[in-house]
Amino acid sequence: MTALGESDTLPSVGQRATRSCEFTPAMVAQFATLVGDRNPVHLDADYAATTPFGAPIVHGMFAASLLSGILGEQLPGPGSIYLGQSLRFEAPVFVGDTVTASVEVVAVRAEKRIVTLRTECVREDGVRVISGEAVVKR
Amino acid sequence: MTALGESDTLPSVGQRATRSCEFTPAMVAQFATLVGDRNPVHLDADYAATTPFGAPIVHGMFAASLLSGILGEQLPGPGSIYLGQSLRFEAPVFVGDTVTASVEVVAVRAEKRIVTLRTECVREDGVRVISGEAVVKR
Repeated sequence: MTALGESDTLPSVGQRATRSCEFTPAMVAQFATLVGDRNPVHLDADYAATTPFGAPIVHGMFAASLLSGILGEQLPGPGSIYLGQSLRFEAPVFVGDTVTASVEVVAVRAEKRIVTLRTECVREDGVRVISGEAVVKR
Repeated sequence: MTALGESDTLPSVGQRATRSCEFTPAMVAQFATLVGDRNPVHLDADYAATTPFGAPIVHGMFAASLLSGILGEQLPGPGSIYLGQSLRFEAPVFVGDTVTASVEVVAVRAEKRIVTLRTECVREDGVRVISGEAVVKR
């Protein structure tokens, strides 16, 4: 690990990074157990059929955690510390959907080493499911 | 499942719910793999020793997911749909810490069935680690 070298590098406004993930039923069940959220809208097809969505949906915080992965592994990358995240859950992610998350640097306060990024997640059919903003210390 | 019965019940302003979780190294490793965030600040003690925290910290989104568990299982409870969440990560959660998350209803829009809750997570030593607000449809 080259902690000092990495932490010296600040990103620039306009830099972007992206990644995609397919949310399988097994992954959703694992997330439910790990974080302790067994809301039947995520796990029970019979229950979900009675909701406006009609089918099980992925936990919002699971889909949003894709953003954490980009921030921690790609941009700004390893060593980043989360200071804040706003999340608007705009549309459902159905179990089995593939979601593409992306982040774009919108502000850099070099003296404080604080980076603000626009964050969003989009379903494979083009519908935006999450929007918001992340603040990270680098 | 009694979906209709449950969804008829709206909580009241001032209602609270809480839960605690110990974040073990195994759980943090599992979260890292599941969401794809292998930032060494969470997983690598040698790396973490070079950071201001000095030891591995829990992913912010993992600690925040405790809130999702309360909302989805306790208050407002099963059937709740996340519309939004703001998160300020105010202090680190170290791997091995026990965190208590709590939510309190601060507004209810009965006609839209939208509930707003103040959300926070506190370490066992009393330090608040996450603050923010959740908006949920019931």
